[in-house]
Amino acid sequence: MHQLFIAEGEKVIAEFLVAKYDLEYLFVTHETTFFNHIDQKNIISATDINKISCLTTPNNCLAVFKIPTQKPIDNSGLKLVLDGIQDPGNLGTIIRLCDWFGISDLICSANTVDLYNPKVVQATMGSVSRVAVTYCDISTYLRKVSIPIYGTFMDGESIYNLKLPENAIIILGNEGKGISPEIEQLVTQKVAIPRFGPMQKTESLNVASATAIFLSEFKRTQRNL
Amino acid sequence: MHQLFIAEGEKVIAEFLVAKYDLEYLFVTHETTFFNHIDQKNIISATDINKISCLTTPNNCLAVFKIPTQKPIDNSGLKLVLDGIQDPGNLGTIIRLCDWFGISDLICSANTVDLYNPKVVQATMGSVSRVAVTYCDISTYLRKVSIPIYGTFMDGESIYNLKLPENAIIILGNEGKGISPEIEQLVTQKVAIPRFGPMQKTESLNVASATAIFLSEFKRTQRNL
Repeated sequence: MHQLFIAEGEKVIAEFLVAKYDLEYLFVTHETTFFNHIDQKNIISATDINKISCLTTPNNCLAVFKIPTQKPIDNSGLKLVLDGIQDPGNLGTIIRLCDWFGISDLICSANTVDLYNPKVVQATMGSVSRVAVTYCDISTYLRKVSIPIYGTFMDGESIYNLKLPENAIIILGNEGKGISPEIEQLVTQKVAIPRFGPMQKTESLNVASATAIFLSEFKRTQRNL
Repeated sequence: MHQLFIAEGEKVIAEFLVAKYDLEYLFVTHETTFFNHIDQKNIISATDINKISCLTTPNNCLAVFKIPTQKPIDNSGLKLVLDGIQDPGNLGTIIRLCDWFGISDLICSANTVDLYNPKVVQATMGSVSRVAVTYCDISTYLRKVSIPIYGTFMDGESIYNLKLPENAIIILGNEGKGISPEIEQLVTQKVAIPRFGPMQKTESLNVASATAIFLSEFKRTQRNL
């Protein structure tokens, strides 16, 4: 286990540098001047960047950073728990949402897609450097907390009708299966986003879209207290 | 111009069949029983499906449908206008959101990614069959309408503070550049989603996340009238 991950593109790499991640390698083509202030770099050809890049359209720079150690979970505020999210793009978008809405802790079940999957790192646009992400047995974690646990279900109470607390956990489930039965038992309040379409046929919202709406509602209502 | 598009997977194909799209070809492997009621099909090998599929992990069925003619735009209700959205996944997610929130019309600038791009069709999960999507010169369209035009800008008025009308247009801009200067001039109200993060560094929300929050707010506030 080398405990390293790849970040690509000037903007994404710069976010990790600013957040003081340990830089292991930096590969740049000679056309790039963006990293002129960094001595620790290897100038390589565009062909070689293409060989090591994880992107369909490679950038002119690629960095390898050390994976930092997990921070302990903060016990106050609003927390997001993911139960088996599989799509790297969804996890990346959810991390950007946490950053936007000031959610400091994102807790992921062990079967959630890896945070350091290159597609996740790129989809976060670097905001992963500002959100503490913890992988753990979420069942054990949820049994220990004493704040309300909101879970998203099709038959839950409308998010628009609830009085939402400042300290709470919101659980979002797997793209196809939703929240697992074991975790469902630990939910103290089932919530849903009402549908407005006349046909009522849409099966579900994308999990990142649902996260956007839940976080917006929690933050909006707290703001008006 | 054959005016055809590809849909893959039982669920997505079924949505188009229910919506009475004209089926041109249906290819299935002999393991599939889902389309037994449809005579017009070709049974082919999994290897052949793999050859024609646009997916990384092909399904056991692939259909080719006729692209329907554009319907005229409905003049009442809430409408979404996209100014140069490039990512197929974003367009697909936005179409699912329109379906969920009962937005009957989605109007796209000519430089928006093609609705019938296979990645868009798959990302919509079939809900494209329930949303009327029109590609046009959005500048000409916007000059003709007489309802309020909301545009999303970083320095806009908070979406949470505004009284939102029932009949309105919301414009979402390109992933990197936002709304183009020509279209900005036609906006009657600039709106923004407030940031809550303590660092205030997140550059922007993903455009599909922003759409989710805007549609939720418009529908929530109308519901409380």
